[in-house]
Amino acid sequence: MTKLGPNPANSCPLTLLRFLERAATAYRDCPSVVYHDTVYTWSQTFRRCLRLASALVSIGIARRDMQFGVPMSGAILNNINTRLEARTVSVLLHHSGSKLVFVDPPSLQLLPPEHPAPRVVIAEDPHEKELLPAPATALTYEGLLEKGDPDSAWVRPANEWEPMILNYTFGTTSAPKGVLHCHRGIFLITLDSLVDWAMPARPTYLWTLPMFHVNGWSFPWGVAVVGGTNVCLRRVGVADVYAAISRHGVTHLCGAPVVLNMLANAPEAVRKTLPGKVEILTGGAPPPAAVLHRTEAIGFKVRHGYGLCETAGLATSCVWNAEWDKLPASERARLKARQGVCTPATAEVDVVDGERGRSVPRDGSTVGEVVIRGGCVMQGYFNDKAATRAAIRRDGWFYTGDVGVMHPDGYLEIRDRSKDVIISGGENISSVEVESVLYGHPAVNEAAVVARPDEFWGGDALRVREPQGGHSWVVAWCRERMPRYMVPKTVVFRDELPKTSTGKIQKYVLRNIAKEMGASSRGVSSKM
Amino acid sequence: MTKLGPNPANSCPLTLLRFLERAATAYRDCPSVVYHDTVYTWSQTFRRCLRLASALVSIGIARRDMQFGVPMSGAILNNINTRLEARTVSVLLHHSGSKLVFVDPPSLQLLPPEHPAPRVVIAEDPHEKELLPAPATALTYEGLLEKGDPDSAWVRPANEWEPMILNYTFGTTSAPKGVLHCHRGIFLITLDSLVDWAMPARPTYLWTLPMFHVNGWSFPWGVAVVGGTNVCLRRVGVADVYAAISRHGVTHLCGAPVVLNMLANAPEAVRKTLPGKVEILTGGAPPPAAVLHRTEAIGFKVRHGYGLCETAGLATSCVWNAEWDKLPASERARLKARQGVCTPATAEVDVVDGERGRSVPRDGSTVGEVVIRGGCVMQGYFNDKAATRAAIRRDGWFYTGDVGVMHPDGYLEIRDRSKDVIISGGENISSVEVESVLYGHPAVNEAAVVARPDEFWGGDALRVREPQGGHSWVVAWCRERMPRYMVPKTVVFRDELPKTSTGKIQKYVLRNIAKEMGASSRGVSSKM
Repeated sequence: MTKLGPNPANSCPLTLLRFLERAATAYRDCPSVVYHDTVYTWSQTFRRCLRLASALVSIGIARRDMQFGVPMSGAILNNINTRLEARTVSVLLHHSGSKLVFVDPPSLQLLPPEHPAPRVVIAEDPHEKELLPAPATALTYEGLLEKGDPDSAWVRPANEWEPMILNYTFGTTSAPKGVLHCHRGIFLITLDSLVDWAMPARPTYLWTLPMFHVNGWSFPWGVAVVGGTNVCLRRVGVADVYAAISRHGVTHLCGAPVVLNMLANAPEAVRKTLPGKVEILTGGAPPPAAVLHRTEAIGFKVRHGYGLCETAGLATSCVWNAEWDKLPASERARLKARQGVCTPATAEVDVVDGERGRSVPRDGSTVGEVVIRGGCVMQGYFNDKAATRAAIRRDGWFYTGDVGVMHPDGYLEIRDRSKDVIISGGENISSVEVESVLYGHPAVNEAAVVARPDEFWGGDALRVREPQGGHSWVVAWCRERMPRYMVPKTVVFRDELPKTSTGKIQKYVLRNIAKEMGASSRGVSSKM
Repeated sequence: MTKLGPNPANSCPLTLLRFLERAATAYRDCPSVVYHDTVYTWSQTFRRCLRLASALVSIGIARRDMQFGVPMSGAILNNINTRLEARTVSVLLHHSGSKLVFVDPPSLQLLPPEHPAPRVVIAEDPHEKELLPAPATALTYEGLLEKGDPDSAWVRPANEWEPMILNYTFGTTSAPKGVLHCHRGIFLITLDSLVDWAMPARPTYLWTLPMFHVNGWSFPWGVAVVGGTNVCLRRVGVADVYAAISRHGVTHLCGAPVVLNMLANAPEAVRKTLPGKVEILTGGAPPPAAVLHRTEAIGFKVRHGYGLCETAGLATSCVWNAEWDKLPASERARLKARQGVCTPATAEVDVVDGERGRSVPRDGSTVGEVVIRGGCVMQGYFNDKAATRAAIRRDGWFYTGDVGVMHPDGYLEIRDRSKDVIISGGENISSVEVESVLYGHPAVNEAAVVARPDEFWGGDALRVREPQGGHSWVVAWCRERMPRYMVPKTVVFRDELPKTSTGKIQKYVLRNIAKEMGASSRGVSSKM
């Protein structure tokens, strides 16, 4: 048989950069971005991007440099979380070797003035008069575009394994790691997410998920493929979100469970009748069944998926089975809270025994570590060989650090992050399971359960939640719904739980609180 | 910067074989295949495929052999057109080195009894009593499955460039070529077609397009991704098609323009009210605007795409622009008859000057050869280096042999196959353009225009169409609608036009007729 490998016509690197060029042809005059009364079309967005790419090349942001920029110039994009502290931002800029920073005026104070390396481009917001204007001497985003050529050619990657995106991940711990993704991976996850969510042509997509959170789960590019409209907000407040949904006829949005919680708990005054079917894709943390249930009860259609920064977006989703429609609402929500099956273009997801790397039984109860392999898995952690080796093992799997079970029907359910599992009296307690029961109580807005050091049991459960009277009803509620050993022994009420910018509760902060309690006031806290 | 290339967790070969395993999990109890009252679920289909794959391995159909089989066994699949002649089938079986042939009883006579190589598996049809039963000694499909193990593991490709599919292409000429596609290409076109058509979850898909036609444009695999139901017919007759649409609530179907023609021209007696929105994807030949218009007038929603055997499915599609809704029906149909823009995952489509390979101006009138590059382009023609070299050039493009123009809005329009272009008096005449005008006449069912040798002009137009009175009205109709030099000089009426099994009119047959007419009866034919 003739050997026929790759040839010049079929081995062009997989890259999504052409999606924009295609959108500028197929969706030329359709709105691409809406922000207040500023509306761009796909044709305009394409030309603005060409301007930007060529301007970046002209000021020396050259291909293959490891820096902040945009991929159409051949540079690597690094979306930085704007809710980080200045000190952390400085660490990231240094670690990534950023050469250029685009910044929105309200985030200017995050940039250390003494930082020598990156040049700064200020993206002014014409709709927010109260924001600090840029210093007259600063280079503005529109000024930079002026320097660019809208008829220039964009830089194609030489091969599909070239890095395109750097994302710093914090997870629920405090140590940032730079997750590097190549063109191929981002291309695959973008198509995958569109197919998995069955996104129709020309959706109206509301940005409630920050783009710095795993690149908005690939939808900045996915929306271009289907010619949708990106509706942007400065602040993701519940009134603004309902107003935008109603005004623009939003059809799709994404968000962590905290966004669902916000929508479901909105005061009557700000709620609006939904303009039609509004689909929400949620992920980033296991959604409590009660929150799913409340969100669907007000008319949103929720799909639930699971992914990590290291998979560039959702690697599994809870594909709905029409048979489940017949089940009671609470049971439906419980099924939907599962992380589900792998998305079409991601090769595989499994739960393995951490010691020996063998698949755990599909019994819905044996916990193990969740592992993933497929085209969307990261290239590795930037400049961190040890962490890369620990995550991407020789057996060909990426070890997520998440703990889960595989149900008999092949659906994955995350039980916890490894480090969040509570060990008490030799029993493993899933903090997510306990939290799920707590969320079922109508008075509970948010809950988080962490271990508290305990001399006798080798661990203990501490629950921190928002205020509402005494704690005995909490314990009573739990006793009726879980084995005795799982019932939290200490309850703490808080006005607010510490969260990451993407709505994940920072358990390491709670663990520190619990540790202090264990050392200083154990007697008191155990009586609470 | 650390060099981070492919790693074990992200370089798993792209292959769609896992789509089925996923469907068996996510759509376990949903119907996968419906044929008369036989219904399989996705879980059953997966287990049957595992049985088949393992049975094939057990009878010695081994990996990397160039043969007919199914890819889950590691073998290469070659769907053979059942409307070919036995002599041609014999050539294909020999050229491909097939080891095993699956055959439906009505096609048994296509297999040369003396052919020594392939073993034969007979797929009996329990719903068609009148069909020849298999000889008692023959190996039947169900018998083969019995030998297989539904719990076996399927064979993964060692790398994504391994061949998966062989398709023989005839186009409108008579020389068959074996188009070889690898796992990567088929994987990409499958996702691409789903995204491009925005196929929703759980469609009901009717098989009006034969699977031997470019593997059913990738939908055998695409339907598995979205958990749809494959509704199968033995005969694609207009009454059966309308009955199936109505009975099963069909939502999607594909077909060449001849299928649209059939639906639009159906007698009132067999037409049924459509059960809801029924989407048709058409391609394979440029659809006359009049046919598009008539099909949409009865309620079907038509999308039009363009591809070749060499691209494994549709490489472009005519993405609809909502602005066009305001135009008159005939103008809408004319716009939809264009081949459109590249699909999302196919890198690029262009029209080039055949001599120098430069892009032609985007003026909608300068014709050139259509070229394509991207992941879906074939690996090459099996055992035919010369043809491969001629098609896949050093400049990195696949030369399609189709002639087209690029419109100012970036939409491609095919004008003809290179060999179908008519040269008359030094002018190039697009046969498709002339045919399009003919189809606009309400009395015309089908039309084809080919060149007739002419001593003076160096070419001539011959039109062959179905009967209806004299021909002067044809010439009059054309004179009002096209330049004088394009008006056909000879008109021939036929009861039926010679077609390939997929509904393409065989112009080489008509050219032969025209040649004979030119030699023997020029005077008479020009007076017709």
